[in-house]
Amino acid sequence: MTPQSEDFSAWYNELVFKAELVDRGPVRGTMVIRPYGYRIWELLQAGIDRRIKETGHVNAYFPLLIPESYLRREAEHVEGFAPELAVVTHAGGKELEEPLIVRPTSETVIGEMMAKWISSHRDLPMLLNQWANVVRWEMRPRMFLRTTEFLWQEGHTAHVDEDDAIRETLLALDLYASVAREIAAMPVVAGEKTAGERFPGARRTFTVEGMMRDGRALQSGTSHYMGTNFAKAFNIQYTAESGELEYAHTTSWGMTTRMLGGVIMTHGDDKGLVLPPVLAPYQVVIVPIGRGDQAGQVLPPAQELAGRLQRKGIRAHVDTRTHLSPGFKFNDWELRGVPVRLELGPRDLAGGTTLMSLRLGQGKTPVSLDSAPARLEAELGAFQDMLLRRATDFRDEHTNTVGSWGEFAEAVKTGWALAPHCGQPSCEDDIKAETSATPRCIPLDGPPAEGRCIRCELPSAYGKRLVFGRAY
Amino acid sequence: MTPQSEDFSAWYNELVFKAELVDRGPVRGTMVIRPYGYRIWELLQAGIDRRIKETGHVNAYFPLLIPESYLRREAEHVEGFAPELAVVTHAGGKELEEPLIVRPTSETVIGEMMAKWISSHRDLPMLLNQWANVVRWEMRPRMFLRTTEFLWQEGHTAHVDEDDAIRETLLALDLYASVAREIAAMPVVAGEKTAGERFPGARRTFTVEGMMRDGRALQSGTSHYMGTNFAKAFNIQYTAESGELEYAHTTSWGMTTRMLGGVIMTHGDDKGLVLPPVLAPYQVVIVPIGRGDQAGQVLPPAQELAGRLQRKGIRAHVDTRTHLSPGFKFNDWELRGVPVRLELGPRDLAGGTTLMSLRLGQGKTPVSLDSAPARLEAELGAFQDMLLRRATDFRDEHTNTVGSWGEFAEAVKTGWALAPHCGQPSCEDDIKAETSATPRCIPLDGPPAEGRCIRCELPSAYGKRLVFGRAY
Repeated sequence: MTPQSEDFSAWYNELVFKAELVDRGPVRGTMVIRPYGYRIWELLQAGIDRRIKETGHVNAYFPLLIPESYLRREAEHVEGFAPELAVVTHAGGKELEEPLIVRPTSETVIGEMMAKWISSHRDLPMLLNQWANVVRWEMRPRMFLRTTEFLWQEGHTAHVDEDDAIRETLLALDLYASVAREIAAMPVVAGEKTAGERFPGARRTFTVEGMMRDGRALQSGTSHYMGTNFAKAFNIQYTAESGELEYAHTTSWGMTTRMLGGVIMTHGDDKGLVLPPVLAPYQVVIVPIGRGDQAGQVLPPAQELAGRLQRKGIRAHVDTRTHLSPGFKFNDWELRGVPVRLELGPRDLAGGTTLMSLRLGQGKTPVSLDSAPARLEAELGAFQDMLLRRATDFRDEHTNTVGSWGEFAEAVKTGWALAPHCGQPSCEDDIKAETSATPRCIPLDGPPAEGRCIRCELPSAYGKRLVFGRAY
Repeated sequence: MTPQSEDFSAWYNELVFKAELVDRGPVRGTMVIRPYGYRIWELLQAGIDRRIKETGHVNAYFPLLIPESYLRREAEHVEGFAPELAVVTHAGGKELEEPLIVRPTSETVIGEMMAKWISSHRDLPMLLNQWANVVRWEMRPRMFLRTTEFLWQEGHTAHVDEDDAIRETLLALDLYASVAREIAAMPVVAGEKTAGERFPGARRTFTVEGMMRDGRALQSGTSHYMGTNFAKAFNIQYTAESGELEYAHTTSWGMTTRMLGGVIMTHGDDKGLVLPPVLAPYQVVIVPIGRGDQAGQVLPPAQELAGRLQRKGIRAHVDTRTHLSPGFKFNDWELRGVPVRLELGPRDLAGGTTLMSLRLGQGKTPVSLDSAPARLEAELGAFQDMLLRRATDFRDEHTNTVGSWGEFAEAVKTGWALAPHCGQPSCEDDIKAETSATPRCIPLDGPPAEGRCIRCELPSAYGKRLVFGRAY
């Protein structure tokens, strides 16, 4: 495999196939998510879904096909999505009277339904979420990061006023930050997008941005305050306590299969994937050592050990492939990012131990079979924490508070620059043309800082420094 | 609401909307699954998914859009699906070179991938499953039962030979029977379809059939043995231990959101839904009794009781809506099929009890607050068992072993007929034209029985009686 340091992009493109996470779909830009990749997605989903429900949201399902006219009702929305749409023109053997859009996102159809379901202030807030596939035609597809079809959840909520809607927008953002940190071990920065990077139809867009090991930023989840734009386009109105008819304020927010790309590029190395234990399909793989008769002797105790680990809630797996050598298996499980490998041979067994190797560790440590479940539970917790710490250190080492344009241009070659900006779209364009860097966000927890734009020297528009970086 | 006995179909069509299970989508034949309906689906999914994983299958995800040419590779398959396809002709602002089909099922794209992934007998069996949406254009749509888009799981497996593939086909069928019985309390009959009712491209099709309260049959899950039809169309070959190149034998099997229609029509009554506890979003609803100050006093103990039930694993909910009367709430939760309702007023509280009503019971029973969690756990288990028993009795009372064509014609007006058949498609057509009844299945556990066709008096072709009935 191409080493990360030599060509990060080639490393990524080779790894996603070699680790059997994905395959190419028959249509350009589409992705087959193979069982190993899909299991990671399921584990991520479970963590997101639990948090979504705990915060009072309910799941629902809305149709895939949306009448073309719906998208036109919100002018910015249709303008933003028009180039990416897939259109059904024929169905049931006939040409349709009105073409149907394969949903690129569901604001419009959910807006139409909210208008039907909401009549009183008692119906608010309405807190919906959907797990679904969406289609956005991609000119430069890349597995997980930009695919013509992807999987996601999309939250859609309606509120009595701006205050409540903004509270929700930030709650979703916070949920994404905690998912990224606690599940994916990605130390994301949460902040607001500048006007040029807003979602089509949104009044405010917030984002969590992760730093990949090549120093680039990955937008990992976004949360939007729509104001009354969609409420007006779809007539989502309610009778207030005062008796007045008012427009609802809506939000939407989404996290996608793109997160798997984030996990790969935040933690992976030249040997392959490095999976946070919370997301690892197999947290511990046991490799029986020995050939022929020996292998037969070692297998039952290996299965027994796996059973004891499983009863502790650990996803343990015994590699029973008899036609492969232990060395091949070691490399294979390293490639697939398994956090802990255990070797169990006749001599280990005689001594009542197993040899433990950590995916990012050096050498092998004997662990007593009796204490293995407790020991491995602790090791997995420590491994998860270590990954977050390591990624945080990496991010901090590659983030520079810059004082000049020269420093800025240098910093964004290998990481992020914290810099004041004038807020002019033309100046953002200019920075992008010169350095490929864009404003990733106005960080929510950035300290107040006055100053002049790093590029054009007009006064800073945001009262704090922005995060700039090259992005995926 | 229209009573069941007066017009079953009108009852169903009103109930699905009144109970807020669904709404109409903007495109004809599409369905919005509202939160209350979607939660039932999630609970059903969890039960299916657990059984799928326990039997060694792994989930994956394949693209929504399939090149039109793929469908043409298996002649029966394309012929069967052609009238129901939705076709994407434009995407990314351009007309596509080859039209894309929105998947009606994924045999073709999964066949293409299996051909890539399978090379040796060691790769078999390959046991895949996918949770997905599919689109089949419907001329006579009906909520849950026939919608233009529906949600399902589709299992797709590949095997070394016919024996192993048939074993899998029957394993999936058995899985569906246990899901129907244990989760949905539907006493389905498992059997094989006659040739005329096979899946397009299958060599053998098996089904589980439930009886609805109007005596009609609902096909509730199907499992297909494809022989080598798809393996030959997509070139799914493996090297056998002998070194020979062989075609794999494949299967596919699916269960869908249609099951929710089955639950409604198996258990519901004139008051509304009756939900099996395993599928009930709320298993127990607590209605605080009293207005004004009293309501305020009762609410904290109601919440405390709900908390104790939840810690026991019971999905308990407190109805906190202060603007609605208790009587309105009682009707509302009956309509929504909640198995157990608890009333809690100041007098109950003073006596340390709560008043319990079962969804199909008579009157109210006082239950001590202290013992409520254990008591309700037992009541819910008993309610689940009772529903299955009740539905089994209903099915048996409405199933007749018939000895003449007159008895047959009479039996299928209100239920099922068990009858010998000649196996001629033209005779099946004739029976359907006369009575609207079709052969639902050749029951796996039907006792051997010779005899002459109930319609045309040619010798029986199956060695046992078939289940005939009118179907959804």
